[in-house]
Order: sequence, then structure tokens, then C-alpha cells
Amino acid sequence: MAASPSFHMKIYSIAHLGPSGTYTEVAALTYADTLRAVNPDKHYELHPYPTIAQTLRAVANGQADFGVVPVENSIEGSVTVTLDTLWQLDHLQVQQAVVLPIAHALLSYSSTLDLIQTVYSHPQALAQCQIWLETYLPNAQVVAISSTGEAVQRLKETPDFAAIASQRAAKLYDAPVMAYPINDYADNCTRFWAVSQEPSSVGSHASLAFSFPANRPGSLAKALQIFAERNINLSRVESRPTKRSLGDYLFFIDIEANIFDESVQLAVRELETFTETLKILGSYSILNG
Amino acid sequence: MAASPSFHMKIYSIAHLGPSGTYTEVAALTYADTLRAVNPDKHYELHPYPTIAQTLRAVANGQADFGVVPVENSIEGSVTVTLDTLWQLDHLQVQQAVVLPIAHALLSYSSTLDLIQTVYSHPQALAQCQIWLETYLPNAQVVAISSTGEAVQRLKETPDFAAIASQRAAKLYDAPVMAYPINDYADNCTRFWAVSQEPSSVGSHASLAFSFPANRPGSLAKALQIFAERNINLSRVESRPTKRSLGDYLFFIDIEANIFDESVQLAVRELETFTETLKILGSYSILNG
Repeated sequence: MAASPSFHMKIYSIAHLGPSGTYTEVAALTYADTLRAVNPDKHYELHPYPTIAQTLRAVANGQADFGVVPVENSIEGSVTVTLDTLWQLDHLQVQQAVVLPIAHALLSYSSTLDLIQTVYSHPQALAQCQIWLETYLPNAQVVAISSTGEAVQRLKETPDFAAIASQRAAKLYDAPVMAYPINDYADNCTRFWAVSQEPSSVGSHASLAFSFPANRPGSLAKALQIFAERNINLSRVESRPTKRSLGDYLFFIDIEANIFDESVQLAVRELETFTETLKILGSYSILNG
Repeated sequence: MAASPSFHMKIYSIAHLGPSGTYTEVAALTYADTLRAVNPDKHYELHPYPTIAQTLRAVANGQADFGVVPVENSIEGSVTVTLDTLWQLDHLQVQQAVVLPIAHALLSYSSTLDLIQTVYSHPQALAQCQIWLETYLPNAQVVAISSTGEAVQRLKETPDFAAIASQRAAKLYDAPVMAYPINDYADNCTRFWAVSQEPSSVGSHASLAFSFPANRPGSLAKALQIFAERNINLSRVESRPTKRSLGDYLFFIDIEANIFDESVQLAVRELETFTETLKILGSYSILNG
């Protein structure tokens, strides 16, 4: 049994995409466990936020101590709002990556699939179940909303609605599971990042984001070359629009190396000589939940 | 006045994301005009499809002669379903890029913003108006559906609904415009691709997609280097998950060069020696609509 915190003890808050029942909440619970394991005398509390951007802003403005957000899914790719918001906000550092297997269920109060007219879920979850939806619910309207947790809350015992969410969400909201698993690819997992305003510590991985001054052809090739020459493996390269004009991008890279290694430090310093803005998003290890 | 086709004349069909009123329809109309300019004796007809994937599949299976789909927006980035579907389908070649400025309007039968409870639109349009929505409709539910045209059809004169779509869609469906423009960035444009089963002809730009065998660090740096060495400018590098496992990607690149140039041909041949799959998506010019 967990001891209740004494009244003068600080409670650390972990913001996450809510409401209760989202996959991000599971990642936040996993992260809280690792924090408790290291700091058994500290107390951590989860706080759901309605969007990913609000979750990250809560940490950036000091409203929350930590924030957990999805960053990438193995089937649907980047969660672009996470990348864009991290680029815009200052002072946030990735502390930990958490990878969770994702298995979706169809939740509904309907007795048969035929009655279902509308399916609600997060856009990533809907995209991960595209083939299943086209096969079994070809005539249902597919409606994207801000989280899988909110999708379950929409059911309200109406038989013509269904939600795509986790089996855990089904239990939490006492909603019937009609089909499971319904994701199109069995090997479906999502990587989450836990961020805070603290400087990151030593980790096996690091992430950077950078932009180049306009009209510098070959800059990305040059940037990647800096790491290749030093045998620093890049596990991911992602581009996002700078929102200045079509064809103008910024880049996110993940490296499989400790950012404090001398070779990595030298690579970063060389990169800085020709980037416009360079942000070190953090150094972290990967936890498989 | 256009002559009506005689009964034995073939009518070429152009599939596009529908229904009527979408931005993609405008791109398809623009593309049809360029086809008519070159082939004044041929007849072209637009055919709306409910999704991007269905539009591309209609061309791949011969149901339609051409297909027009959005590929990238200057604010929100890639339309990932377009990239993923082009990777999966064979025989499709990009014939033309069309770039359109995008200015969104809020359409509603409500007399005041306060009454609006739900805003419908395509996920890209919703993302492009995020700040406006947070500012003026902070309490409205934001619901993503398959197209801006469908969003307008949902209004059905109900005052608590609103749609984000073009002013053209407002006219087509005779729906009132409550606010315009509402996109967060004035410089908002979308690039569309027109595809067919015909081989592409000479163009100023070309697009390739490729994957690497698993566990070959540095492959992307090497690929980009091949083009950089030959002074072939890459205007875009995009990664997408292969859907095999987390951390396994395929890449889409756009080059600012004629694919039939000798230096480009040599670069492609060198690239082929270490890619797993390499697809030439097409060679095309860019039309600013």
C-alpha cells in the first residue's frame, strides 16, 4: 500500500494526453513507476490534459513538472503536433522514451456491427485500423477526435456509436468490447517521450532539431554526413514544414549515442556552424513497457 | 461554349477527392484545363471519390484515367495517406504538380459564434486553423472527417454546426460564410499531384521513393550524398514507416532536375545498388494555380 504524502511534501505532477483511458496515460503510469523506483520518497500524480499541445505547454509554463506525449507510431509515423510544439516551446528536455505495444479494440453498446453508424477515435488509432474498418464497417462514418479516452466517453450507451480504444479503456469506462484486436498490423507500437524543464542526464539516445538558412541546397546531406563520418547512427530523420513557405523544412533527428560523448559533441559543434537554429531536444534511454 | 462529345468519342475521367467543393476538385479542374489546352479535341470529366486511397486505387485499377490528390501543405506537411498509398500501388506515375493557395472560411447557419458546438473539416484544414479555433471557438468540438466538401454537406442548416472549407464550397452549397480567412498562416498553400498509368514525360522535377535493407546505418546519408556530389538539389526529404517495425523507414525525395538527364540517371543507378526497393514516382513540372 502506498503511503499517503504528508501535507508539506511536494507532489510532482505528470501531465499527459487525457482523459483517463488513453494509451498516453499508460505511458505516463509507466514513467511514474520509473521515477518512484529512483525516488521512493517522492510523490507523483498524473494530470490529464485535453490535447498534446496543452500537455507540453503545461510543462513549459511550470504548471506541471513532467509531461508525457506520443511522438511516433510504427504504422502511422510521427505525431506531428508533438514535433511542432516541441520546436516552438523552449526549456523542454526529453528525459525518457517509453515504447508501448498498441492493440486496439472496438467498443460499442450495439449488439451487432450492422447498427454502428459512427466510429470515434484519435486520428492515429483510426489510421491504424483502416483496413479493418473498410472490411467490417464499410458504411460507418469515421470521426477523428482528440483522444481514444474521449472516444469512449462519447459512447454514452448509444448503440449506433463505436469507439476505438484500448481494452484498459473498456474496463475503466465499463464499455463492451465487440472486437479485438482490430489493428491492421500486429506489430504496432508507439513511442512516447517524457519531458521536463530539468536538463537531461546521460542516455543511450538523443534527439536534435534544426533548420537551415533559406536556399542552401545540400544542407541536409551535409548534416547527415557529419554523423556518418563519425559512425554515429541516426535511427530517424523526420522533416516538418517551417510554416514559412512551401519547400522550407526543419529536421528532427534521433541519434543512437550519448550526447555527452566527445564525438557527438564535436558533430553537434560542426552542425551548429551551418544551421540557422539548432535545438537539443534531450538525451534519454528507451524503456519498453 | 464547349462542344458536346460525339457518342463514339472517349471521355477521359479524372478521379479526385470529393465531393464537389474540395480544394482537390479545384486542383483537378486546373489540371483538366492544362490537358484540354494540349489536347483540345479530347474530353475530360471529373469524378469525385470519398477518400484519397480510393482515388488512387481507381487509377491503378483502370477505373479512372487520371487521379488528383493532395501531397503536401506548407503548414501541416505531408499528406501521409497519399505517400503510403503511392508506395503500395504499382504503375502510377506523377504527371503534373499543381500548387494552390489555400484560404479557409468558417461556414455556418448560426447567427453567432457562441451557438456553434461542433466544427467539421478535413484534418489538414482543422490543423491549419488551430489558433483561430482556440481563440474564437475554444469550447466547440473539433471533428475531423474525410474532406472539406463533406464538412459543408454536414451543415444541413443546423445552427450548432460549422464547417471549415473554401469560399467556393460556400457558393456551391449556398452556405453562409461567417469568417474568412481563418487560416493561422497567410502563406498557406497545398501541392497536389496528378497521376496516371502513362509513363511521365520530361519535367523540371522528379520524385523517388526507396527503402533500405534492415540494419544499414548511414544509408540515407549515403543516398543524399549521391545527389549532393552531382549538384542535384533535393527540394524535399520525407520519411515514412515501412510498417514492419518501429525505427524502420522508407524515404520519399523530390529532386529539382529532369530525371532523363545523364547525371540524374547515373545517380539513380548508384542509388539502386544499395536500396532494397526503389520506385520512380514520376517526372513533372509544377503549375501554380
